[in-house]
Amino acid sequence: MNRLNSAYGQLATTFAHLGHLGAAESTLFWDGRTKMPPGGSASRGKVMAALTSVIAEKMADPSLADLLDRAETEEAQQLNEWEAANLREMRRRWRHETAIPPPLAAELAERVALSQKAWERARRDSDFAAFAEPLGAVLSLQLEAARIKGDALGMAPYDAMMDAHEPGLTTEFVDQLFGDLAQFLPELLERIMARQAAETAPLPLPGPFPEAAQFALSEKLAAMIGYDFEHGRIDLTAHPFASGAPGDVRITTRFYDDDPVAGVMATMHETGHAMYELGLPGEWAFQPAGYARGMGLHESQSLLTEMQAGRNAAFLPVLARLLRETFGGEGEAWSDDNIRRLYRRVQPSHIRVDADEVTYPLHVILRYRIERALTDGSLEVAGIPSAWNELSRELLGIVPPNDALGCLQDIHWAMGAFGYFPSYTYGAVAAAQLFAAATRQDPEILSALGRGEFAPLLAWTRKHVHTRASLPPTSDAILRAATGASLSADAFKAHLTARYLDE
Amino acid sequence: MNRLNSAYGQLATTFAHLGHLGAAESTLFWDGRTKMPPGGSASRGKVMAALTSVIAEKMADPSLADLLDRAETEEAQQLNEWEAANLREMRRRWRHETAIPPPLAAELAERVALSQKAWERARRDSDFAAFAEPLGAVLSLQLEAARIKGDALGMAPYDAMMDAHEPGLTTEFVDQLFGDLAQFLPELLERIMARQAAETAPLPLPGPFPEAAQFALSEKLAAMIGYDFEHGRIDLTAHPFASGAPGDVRITTRFYDDDPVAGVMATMHETGHAMYELGLPGEWAFQPAGYARGMGLHESQSLLTEMQAGRNAAFLPVLARLLRETFGGEGEAWSDDNIRRLYRRVQPSHIRVDADEVTYPLHVILRYRIERALTDGSLEVAGIPSAWNELSRELLGIVPPNDALGCLQDIHWAMGAFGYFPSYTYGAVAAAQLFAAATRQDPEILSALGRGEFAPLLAWTRKHVHTRASLPPTSDAILRAATGASLSADAFKAHLTARYLDE
Repeated sequence: MNRLNSAYGQLATTFAHLGHLGAAESTLFWDGRTKMPPGGSASRGKVMAALTSVIAEKMADPSLADLLDRAETEEAQQLNEWEAANLREMRRRWRHETAIPPPLAAELAERVALSQKAWERARRDSDFAAFAEPLGAVLSLQLEAARIKGDALGMAPYDAMMDAHEPGLTTEFVDQLFGDLAQFLPELLERIMARQAAETAPLPLPGPFPEAAQFALSEKLAAMIGYDFEHGRIDLTAHPFASGAPGDVRITTRFYDDDPVAGVMATMHETGHAMYELGLPGEWAFQPAGYARGMGLHESQSLLTEMQAGRNAAFLPVLARLLRETFGGEGEAWSDDNIRRLYRRVQPSHIRVDADEVTYPLHVILRYRIERALTDGSLEVAGIPSAWNELSRELLGIVPPNDALGCLQDIHWAMGAFGYFPSYTYGAVAAAQLFAAATRQDPEILSALGRGEFAPLLAWTRKHVHTRASLPPTSDAILRAATGASLSADAFKAHLTARYLDE
Repeated sequence: MNRLNSAYGQLATTFAHLGHLGAAESTLFWDGRTKMPPGGSASRGKVMAALTSVIAEKMADPSLADLLDRAETEEAQQLNEWEAANLREMRRRWRHETAIPPPLAAELAERVALSQKAWERARRDSDFAAFAEPLGAVLSLQLEAARIKGDALGMAPYDAMMDAHEPGLTTEFVDQLFGDLAQFLPELLERIMARQAAETAPLPLPGPFPEAAQFALSEKLAAMIGYDFEHGRIDLTAHPFASGAPGDVRITTRFYDDDPVAGVMATMHETGHAMYELGLPGEWAFQPAGYARGMGLHESQSLLTEMQAGRNAAFLPVLARLLRETFGGEGEAWSDDNIRRLYRRVQPSHIRVDADEVTYPLHVILRYRIERALTDGSLEVAGIPSAWNELSRELLGIVPPNDALGCLQDIHWAMGAFGYFPSYTYGAVAAAQLFAAATRQDPEILSALGRGEFAPLLAWTRKHVHTRASLPPTSDAILRAATGASLSADAFKAHLTARYLDE
């Protein structure tokens, strides 16, 4: 359906325009975290708010709602598969972005700005009490918004919050998945810890690890994975991320003076995100159907690269060789065996973003349980610290010595981002399921990784994930088509058991 | 007048919003020339077009015209001086941006894109014939736009084109100023060349000039001028520029392997532009009255820094010392005297952007005459190369060996930027007049420059130029208040004579 005068054609023009404005936001977000001088932040806040308001204004225009109605009622029969998906995604986005009344959205934005500032101070001082009131304000507004959105979408409030990040993800599904993991992981963890205790600990790699060398290694690894520097670039930030526009997908990474391992993995992780974005179908660029399906599936692509491929037994010797070449390493610490063990060390710790792949889901389950309790009213904001510490003891076997290392460590809640955490573990579980299917369907994938070649793996993810964009309505539909089954923890559990217990 | 419900208050909100969107354009322009991977250009073109169209759409909203009418008729008496200037500038901007009917603007944008591509190829091949037709299309659309705009503004078409860059600048004024210079400069040039011929030529500085050292020197010079890296940064581009948003004004520069002089001067030039932007009154940020007055006055601030202060006899020994320190230079080539003579070498040449301050205005006068002839119909596009070569012989005494070094050297016409070139010489002449007034009013300015201190000069330009923003209706009003006289070539002529003939 291409006639410009059709309702669908007019919608496509409008949504392309919204996509272009979204790309401006995205590049300016990147700039704000990489290149902007610090004194630019006040201006930048206004610029970002202006872009957000232009998009919201256009989305709320009554003529857009009319066009959606007309296209759905009068033109649906004439749309091909992609166009139909595109119209469905337009409606989806419209529902999410127009559900919240503007005064509520404005109050929320204002409260979020205050709560982020309060959070920064509270974390610095490890003083949850100073954060409780601003967080409470954000939470109650966000719950009100979630109820309104849930009514509009026909979902429970928490499901409506998750749906914004990973369409179709439900509490029912997450409860089951996380219940499974919460039962399985602590016991697995105990066995892994016992086994590790019986071995000698891996030797730390001896430095120095000059930034320029780490940077060159990151570029080499990104290129090896398939990242095209004609359409991207790497910069350094405290918190790595991938961001950009069609044809221009940039990643950031970070390096530690005393540890080249973390930087390598941050780069591989963000490159995985970038490959998804760069693999989206160019002819649907800027259209709603042309975006990545969900944040959980997005995380699966980063973890597929970092965890499944990057720490795979086939690939680790390649990585070990690159590390030796880059830093001129010799001797036992630089041996394949020691480097493999360094990359697979498991250790319960307080900070989620530093966690290994065995304990990471436990951090997420902890947060999910608190979010659910806050949503159903069984937990008050003031009770977060003790609930956190109790869950940490139950799931991870450790209790944070203070709230900065506990319930104040993440910015998500301060930003009003409830319902986001499950995406991380959705991604880890999906990555295992996708990697198992890919290597089963194409055995060449593993042997290529042993030669440092990602092309067969990339060809598979391109075909089964990236190019499908948002054509299927959910990530689960993509997983079913790619792996033959809905998401379950089976592959993830098998993966962890094999990798850490050689079973 | 602060009441949000007043027409003026609503206009202030709308124009702030437009200013925020303009800042997004400006930062993305910077990104496109410094950081964007090459493969991002197709996307970026769409993003920039989307921002432009949002601004145009908001500007063309009939409610904006109503508000302007209401504020002018009902509220003018209640506005203070700044608010009245702000309302005047809102109307000015509205007139310029709404004069051209959208279909004409769209066709022009399309033709400009084609003509820029044609120009790139034509310049590469030195083949004007291949550029004539696309240029002709742009010119005729631009003339139509200029006629429409001129009618709306009550100006002749060429004046309307100049008014977009330097408000109030008229053909009558430029004819007189350039007539004066066209009479004075060729004779002066002859005398300078004769004098130079009688002296031994300055020795070139012996390299190497590592990029990192040139960069450090640029940062040192920018900081010396007063540039605050909390609110700016320096990057490298083929064509240096300054760009940004309130509180975030970035500059770019370029370095040559074999010549540190060019980079130093590019940095000082762009820092001069940046100091103007950074000196604009913060409380009027994003409002029409809060922007720099005009491109000619903007150029005066860059040339005040680069040419008037930077090559001043008081400052050159400081610069010579910095060069020696940076590159470890010793011996005669690095002497104050040799470096002074290097920075003051005059030589007619074909390329405008490489010209010295004596011949530069002749390049501009040449272009102005051609633009005027194209506008009044006495010259056809096909006749540009021969007209160019003839004027080059008359004004500069040289004829370019091909069109790449002649009429194809600048991108301006390909972009449809007619009426812009006069700003460059307006700036050079105004810089001389401002510097003469400043050093007359505050003799400390020169002695401070001798110590490498720009603070007294900056205090003067802050007070008399930067903080005035667009409060006065024209740059000439700013010059009159600052120097006691309208712009004339007197100070510029006296400056060149004194600097190059010691008179």
